[in-house]
Amino acid sequence: MRTVRILLVGLGNLGWRFCDLLAEKGAEVERRYALRLLLVGAADSRGTACNPAGLDPARIAALKRAGGAVADLPRWGEPGRTALELVAQAEADLLCEASPVNLQRGGEPGLSHVRTALQRGMHVVTPNKGPLVLAYRELHGLAARHGVQLRFDGTVAGGLPAINVGRRDLRGATVTRIEAVPNLCTGYVLELLGDGLSWAEARARAAAEGVLEADPSFDLEGWDAAAKLVILVNAVMDAPARLEDVERGGITGLSGADVRAARQQGRIYKLLATAERRADGELALRVEPVPLAADHPFSHLGRKQMGVTYTTDIYGRITLTVDEPTPVPSAATMLRDTLDIFV
Amino acid sequence: MRTVRILLVGLGNLGWRFCDLLAEKGAEVERRYALRLLLVGAADSRGTACNPAGLDPARIAALKRAGGAVADLPRWGEPGRTALELVAQAEADLLCEASPVNLQRGGEPGLSHVRTALQRGMHVVTPNKGPLVLAYRELHGLAARHGVQLRFDGTVAGGLPAINVGRRDLRGATVTRIEAVPNLCTGYVLELLGDGLSWAEARARAAAEGVLEADPSFDLEGWDAAAKLVILVNAVMDAPARLEDVERGGITGLSGADVRAARQQGRIYKLLATAERRADGELALRVEPVPLAADHPFSHLGRKQMGVTYTTDIYGRITLTVDEPTPVPSAATMLRDTLDIFV
Repeated sequence: MRTVRILLVGLGNLGWRFCDLLAEKGAEVERRYALRLLLVGAADSRGTACNPAGLDPARIAALKRAGGAVADLPRWGEPGRTALELVAQAEADLLCEASPVNLQRGGEPGLSHVRTALQRGMHVVTPNKGPLVLAYRELHGLAARHGVQLRFDGTVAGGLPAINVGRRDLRGATVTRIEAVPNLCTGYVLELLGDGLSWAEARARAAAEGVLEADPSFDLEGWDAAAKLVILVNAVMDAPARLEDVERGGITGLSGADVRAARQQGRIYKLLATAERRADGELALRVEPVPLAADHPFSHLGRKQMGVTYTTDIYGRITLTVDEPTPVPSAATMLRDTLDIFV
Repeated sequence: MRTVRILLVGLGNLGWRFCDLLAEKGAEVERRYALRLLLVGAADSRGTACNPAGLDPARIAALKRAGGAVADLPRWGEPGRTALELVAQAEADLLCEASPVNLQRGGEPGLSHVRTALQRGMHVVTPNKGPLVLAYRELHGLAARHGVQLRFDGTVAGGLPAINVGRRDLRGATVTRIEAVPNLCTGYVLELLGDGLSWAEARARAAAEGVLEADPSFDLEGWDAAAKLVILVNAVMDAPARLEDVERGGITGLSGADVRAARQQGRIYKLLATAERRADGELALRVEPVPLAADHPFSHLGRKQMGVTYTTDIYGRITLTVDEPTPVPSAATMLRDTLDIFV
């Protein structure tokens, strides 16, 4: 039995669900893979908790669901300590970084957490797009120098193993084109517009159902899809793409009438992210709403579904889609990546 | 630079295309992965060729395309030697086993090739279903005892990494249901029937286009799909399923009128392979033609497309489909698996 000492930073939607997964799946993982996943430290924006002998993940999940802070944890809570201090000081084998995405503020605080963990020789697993979008090459260089792994399968299209398939199962191939519908919320808003709701009504409905973020422009203006495209291109096409290389358009320019007119012609609007290697060798990266024909593999994606397609020279055209009614699959990517490192 | 000495057994449709891939991709693999893929032995049903310093894969591919035998190769050809003798005697790191599937004759000769290679401490990569269907547990036990890997991503749904995703990316999950359309030829025949051809016409057309095997019953009666389901269940559900556990029905019981009547209701017949964990914990395995509704992810699969869906407890429902206009992706799975072992 091997023990993996885990630090978990970020206890929002994904973080506390990952605690649940550790509690629910721990015994099975021990039995099947002879691996003990031991949560030795956890942090949210209000403080940390740390115990080298292990914290109870079920208890932390319950605390967070009830609106508490991890620093409230009796005995092990440390209200004054930051996540970065925890990562810089605690002894662990793996950092699971699930703090909020923040592209505006230089990917912080996630980027510093990831950088610090790699420099200390910890493996890192993260569904946080920020550090990968802004510092893909730097972080991979750091990981290689310190002999550790950096995994980020959860950054694109939730529970879909899009990154893992692209990096591993397409080895030996040239990927000539990537198409992705990596964002749930835009598909839902487009569907509501097509059903006859006004923009104001569609926004209000999506917000009420928790589908829209407090600042919805990140999704609606295509930033989220563009960020995911940048990660896909770096990981799968092995090209140093940056956010500013993406020709980006959101869905806010579309009217309900546009969406309904397309429907009448059997076409479904989706916010599509595309990377294409042109004849001159240059990459063209684009995010824009596209009215997909009925035989496009993404035209039938439902409300909770995302997808990625890889066109390759030797493995044909491979399409992956996922149906995820809850955020559990996105949280579970941290378990997938952890097991992929240590099993 | 690390050298992988490869034996290739079977130089049919997949084998010679794998030779082409070694020739086309060799330099790139050396550059990207510091790995030299060296073909040191090859065998077809008429003899072998062997050279510890390396055979020219492009030359072997050309020889086979022209209808020749590998034993015709000047200097290195050995007309009297069998593939099994080659595997038993030659020094190599990896066996690529691509001899014809043969479930009737106990999976031979492929099974003996795989068994012998594993016993000699070689890794094995194979798209040959026979050995996996008939001896899944035995061969995995052998591989574990000899500290080598057995990879078989090409056994199910051609170039789709269905096995790899199922074994690796679903770690930690319980897979409650598998659905697959793993066979190209039945989909094509069903389409022809739906277009108004008689059974005799549909068979003749599919045979003329090279889609049907000389003995088409293996595909049409569902044996091929059942074999692939057995491999999926062993690999992904970790259950010791056998061919006789599959409730198997082919498409020959369907008439063109059945297919057309379904179409009129917006449903498309596909030969569907399903594994389901029932409430009592037992697995129900079934291959049968099913009229899929328009919103089923497989209803839109085209003529050269296959698919697999995994329903899981923590990763949502993941669907993979592949569009492969030629047999190249199926041959390329041997490159994928080889790189997955050695990179």
